[in-house]
Amino acid sequence: MTQPQLKKVEITSAFWKRYRELVVKEVLPYQWDVMNDQADIKIAEDPQNNGQDKNSHAVANLKIAAGEMKGHHYGFPFQDTDVYKWLEAAAYSFSYHPNPDLKKITDNLVDLIAKAQEPDGYLSTFFQIDAPERKFKRLQQSHELYTMGHYIEAGVAYYQATGSEKALTIAKKMADCIDAHFGLSEGKIPGYDGHPEIELALSRLYEVTHEQKYLDLAHYFLNQRGQNPDFFEKQNEADGIDRDLIPGMRDFPRNYYQAAEPIKDQQTADGHAVRVVYLCTGMAYVARLTGDQDLLAACHRFWNDIVKRRMYITGNIGSTTTGEAFTYDYDLPNDTMYGETCASVGMSFFARQMLNIEAKGEYGDILEKELFNGALSGMSLDGKHFFYVNPLEADPAATKGNPGKSHVLTHRADWFGCACCPANLARLITSVDHYLYSVHDDTILSHQFIANEASFADDVTITQENNFPWAGDIHYTIANPHTRSFKLGLRIPGWSAGNFAVQVNGQAEDVAVTDGFVYFAIDAAATTIDLKLDMSVQFMRSNNRVRADVGQVAIQRGPLVYAAEQADNEAPLWLYRIDRNAKTESHYEADLLKGVTVVEAAAHREPEDPADADLYTSAAEKPAQDTQLTLIPYYAWANREDGQMQVWCRRG
Amino acid sequence: MTQPQLKKVEITSAFWKRYRELVVKEVLPYQWDVMNDQADIKIAEDPQNNGQDKNSHAVANLKIAAGEMKGHHYGFPFQDTDVYKWLEAAAYSFSYHPNPDLKKITDNLVDLIAKAQEPDGYLSTFFQIDAPERKFKRLQQSHELYTMGHYIEAGVAYYQATGSEKALTIAKKMADCIDAHFGLSEGKIPGYDGHPEIELALSRLYEVTHEQKYLDLAHYFLNQRGQNPDFFEKQNEADGIDRDLIPGMRDFPRNYYQAAEPIKDQQTADGHAVRVVYLCTGMAYVARLTGDQDLLAACHRFWNDIVKRRMYITGNIGSTTTGEAFTYDYDLPNDTMYGETCASVGMSFFARQMLNIEAKGEYGDILEKELFNGALSGMSLDGKHFFYVNPLEADPAATKGNPGKSHVLTHRADWFGCACCPANLARLITSVDHYLYSVHDDTILSHQFIANEASFADDVTITQENNFPWAGDIHYTIANPHTRSFKLGLRIPGWSAGNFAVQVNGQAEDVAVTDGFVYFAIDAAATTIDLKLDMSVQFMRSNNRVRADVGQVAIQRGPLVYAAEQADNEAPLWLYRIDRNAKTESHYEADLLKGVTVVEAAAHREPEDPADADLYTSAAEKPAQDTQLTLIPYYAWANREDGQMQVWCRRG
Ligand SMILES: [Zn+2]
Ligand SMILES: [Zn+2]
Repeated sequence: MTQPQLKKVEITSAFWKRYRELVVKEVLPYQWDVMNDQADIKIAEDPQNNGQDKNSHAVANLKIAAGEMKGHHYGFPFQDTDVYKWLEAAAYSFSYHPNPDLKKITDNLVDLIAKAQEPDGYLSTFFQIDAPERKFKRLQQSHELYTMGHYIEAGVAYYQATGSEKALTIAKKMADCIDAHFGLSEGKIPGYDGHPEIELALSRLYEVTHEQKYLDLAHYFLNQRGQNPDFFEKQNEADGIDRDLIPGMRDFPRNYYQAAEPIKDQQTADGHAVRVVYLCTGMAYVARLTGDQDLLAACHRFWNDIVKRRMYITGNIGSTTTGEAFTYDYDLPNDTMYGETCASVGMSFFARQMLNIEAKGEYGDILEKELFNGALSGMSLDGKHFFYVNPLEADPAATKGNPGKSHVLTHRADWFGCACCPANLARLITSVDHYLYSVHDDTILSHQFIANEASFADDVTITQENNFPWAGDIHYTIANPHTRSFKLGLRIPGWSAGNFAVQVNGQAEDVAVTDGFVYFAIDAAATTIDLKLDMSVQFMRSNNRVRADVGQVAIQRGPLVYAAEQADNEAPLWLYRIDRNAKTESHYEADLLKGVTVVEAAAHREPEDPADADLYTSAAEKPAQDTQLTLIPYYAWANREDGQMQVWCRRG
Repeated sequence: MTQPQLKKVEITSAFWKRYRELVVKEVLPYQWDVMNDQADIKIAEDPQNNGQDKNSHAVANLKIAAGEMKGHHYGFPFQDTDVYKWLEAAAYSFSYHPNPDLKKITDNLVDLIAKAQEPDGYLSTFFQIDAPERKFKRLQQSHELYTMGHYIEAGVAYYQATGSEKALTIAKKMADCIDAHFGLSEGKIPGYDGHPEIELALSRLYEVTHEQKYLDLAHYFLNQRGQNPDFFEKQNEADGIDRDLIPGMRDFPRNYYQAAEPIKDQQTADGHAVRVVYLCTGMAYVARLTGDQDLLAACHRFWNDIVKRRMYITGNIGSTTTGEAFTYDYDLPNDTMYGETCASVGMSFFARQMLNIEAKGEYGDILEKELFNGALSGMSLDGKHFFYVNPLEADPAATKGNPGKSHVLTHRADWFGCACCPANLARLITSVDHYLYSVHDDTILSHQFIANEASFADDVTITQENNFPWAGDIHYTIANPHTRSFKLGLRIPGWSAGNFAVQVNGQAEDVAVTDGFVYFAIDAAATTIDLKLDMSVQFMRSNNRVRADVGQVAIQRGPLVYAAEQADNEAPLWLYRIDRNAKTESHYEADLLKGVTVVEAAAHREPEDPADADLYTSAAEKPAQDTQLTLIPYYAWANREDGQMQVWCRRG
């Protein structure tokens, strides 16, 4: 058998099926109404002041560009991307939830987009409607390639899901338009977009069309970035320095846009977190498709910088609200952080691409961390409310009372003026079947424990059954009717590395772990493998270079990071302490938070001092009382009454 | 004997004489040059973006208003106050450092101010030069009464120091001008200034002139504040809503200006911290001078809210940089805080006024806390550098790398675009002799342990000798040649409440503490009292409602709060832990930081994790090593090389 090509994955995981149906039943219709200004919503009191007002106008912008309506553009220059991410999510949903009514809507939407597209392939409604003379003239802020990149992703997905050539043609025309305008040859713009995205989008387009020029163009954007570090400033000057498309954006330093120097020279993951991970995803695509070793080295550098020095234990990234950005190594404040949902979604993209390059369990570990924690936290359990910011510690009093924490909401909001996160998370959830396997030569890697049935070439099927993330018994049934020979690699998660067991066809086997995977040679017609992972409650600590976490523990069970909420515990939560060797107990509660395993940890808690006590005293610490701390999975926080939450708990 | 009137206090404390001479030798000449745009300075890279550029233009503005120069006003609308606070500081300095050269300058300056003043008494150079049609029309932001209030303070001080009637006349003319324009009668403005100050200034003017109308006017401003809570908004609308004098100021809520409701209804100390404490100082003055019990109750309310719920252990106040403001009860983050030097100076004013009303040791405790910690920290040991923000935890990496901490400098800057703090601290230091005694009826309260010789009516003198703040032996010699009868109250500080000893004429005496004071009936011609205070090292904790300090200890010795600096300890400082019952040792080092008592505490410290270690592990905590933590007084931090500093240290 040559490469055992992946055909289709059907998710059978109860946990993920619930989310995937929720997107179909709640998120897609709701977002469609929002984008058509038909939803009765409260735009969140926007913690970022991104909000404009109740209306999205995103579909209306397309209608105006298509000549079906009159009026001005409304919203951000990248408002179109809400529509495209929604379309992409809808396309993925057809694979598990065929939906003719929705299909009519999406087909019509593709028609509308085609109509809005200019003959040369250009499509960015803001510029078409209100600033045609400024096309491609302020790329630091215009998001034009970012916007078209999002359409290209949607078009590719829609083509793959439905066979719509029309959707693909729009994407190709866009790419051709960009190709015509950008590059180093005479008369072209030697630049790139302020927000990476087009690189990964063109790579996806190349993968479906095999048109070399699209890959070359993606490669060009990566090579050119930062070669002319004053490119944006010069464009801004020519465009009129004070004519910001997004107020204040010209004040961010060059590395905010990953454009201060060529990528091969960039040592650290700086600037806007979403830009960084989108760029990294594009880098990994192109590194794999071209073999560019400089790009691969940059992927490794950025990966390590993020994962080893700049990521929260939940997988969230972005330590500051100022510019939704990375700060510096080990700076991971829990209560003033950003941790944008989109950044965790983008980190999932990056991890998936790295898994497509290299069989390293670490990439699977981080992908899992995002899927079950940092990214998933962005949506409420009812699918109707969304977080933009995902803190590891929150307190309604602080949100209300301290301006430095006003962006840290303690309840998910209905919608956002800048609506990037909900649709981004929706497309991740609806496509989660794309995130379970990577195939390298003759090896199938199964790196996620999301129950599924996968079919490969030569009628090979792999069925994975489990009750993950609640239980660690993973049962594989491999059907190989033509008795082909291939290898199957199963990921041993970092959290189970020291404690796992394997049975092959019912017989215990000792297997060596190589870079986070155990490998099995498959050639029988039927094989079963049972993997038993360590689902004990683990006390985690951070590298002690992290000032914010020093002296504290976090609780993890399997892939899930846990959080204590005021709904289960007495406020203030900071009065609890846990010993590292405290007794813990965990049990599944079907009726709580759509079903979660709750962890109870033996804890100590000082009684709260009286309000009229002195603010500072030389008195000894109050004796603590023995008690329990109740923890729930982080992704499920803020689904009950408003209150305090914390992931890290004092040790002692 | 009736009230034993205080005549004069001469500071003999070596600690304070050094600072007072430093102000004369360094601060006053330097600030004079700055205000005259003759200093070769680097304006700080202003953490608040208050800075405009290198020039102050403060004296030039007065010259333009006086017709001696042509040009526009430059700087903030309250730029004049730099000059007035400087003049006030200079005036106080004459009492201990006569200086004919400086006197010539200040006399000329008073002449210039008189010339700049309009015939009706108005003086605010910004409005005179560039916006005469907007006088008193945007009081939320104009700082006109604030500015004139600062002159009135300076004029009163200058009159008291030099007998200059001219200086006093300017002040009276200003007050008359304000009286002519403000009040509830027909044709007057029923308003008040956005920045309290005039209330305390008019009280001071009343105390020296005994003109009832000045006290009435001060009382009016306090009574009227917040009675018409839309006063500022209405003025702004009439003036043109978008014509902010200080950009963005109209966006602050009403309570930022303490104007959301009448003072008698205000329950908490909200808004800009300096405004709050200036307002409180005015309230205390007027409460004492008028007997207004509502005002006195408000003083108590605000005092308790600040001291019991909103003050750092160093006396600093203002928990957020956004608006340099209070946040909410027990919200005292150490690393993102503000703690403006001016706010601690203002808190000293408030404490002094409360001591003039009531013999409560608590007021003396807080005054002492500010004088030896939070306020004093604002100036470097060389008198040439100043803090605006006084953090309790600082890290150069955070200042540079995290935008939420960019305002927290780890070195004092040469000057500031908004230069309020240096001159404010200078006037506190030069007038510290006014802060040592309060006289109530027949009782002299000695509430500060700053060595001095004080003379009272009837040839009574009190000589206080000590080596405070390094030693706790306080020796009093009371000469009472006419054997009058009076009482002497000595403050027993909160930090010594459980452990002090008294000898009268060499004989040990048991004395009861009443509200923080011990009292002695003096009628002999000569009396000595020896007070022995507890100078042991004390481990302090905060009320555990303070999230930021939970599980931590601070070290205090006598009045001084201590801090650990990277100059003495291995970074990162957060790896140190101290047991509450740890052994400590303290010793005076004459050559360190102009002479300080250093505290060494037995501590534990985990070794730092390697940079390439995993960010999160389930590994046990590293065993800590026994070591020492070296601490220096907080006021003296940031006088050596740049590095980390922290006041609170993990317990354990
Ligand atoms: Zn987002
Ligand atoms: Zn100040």
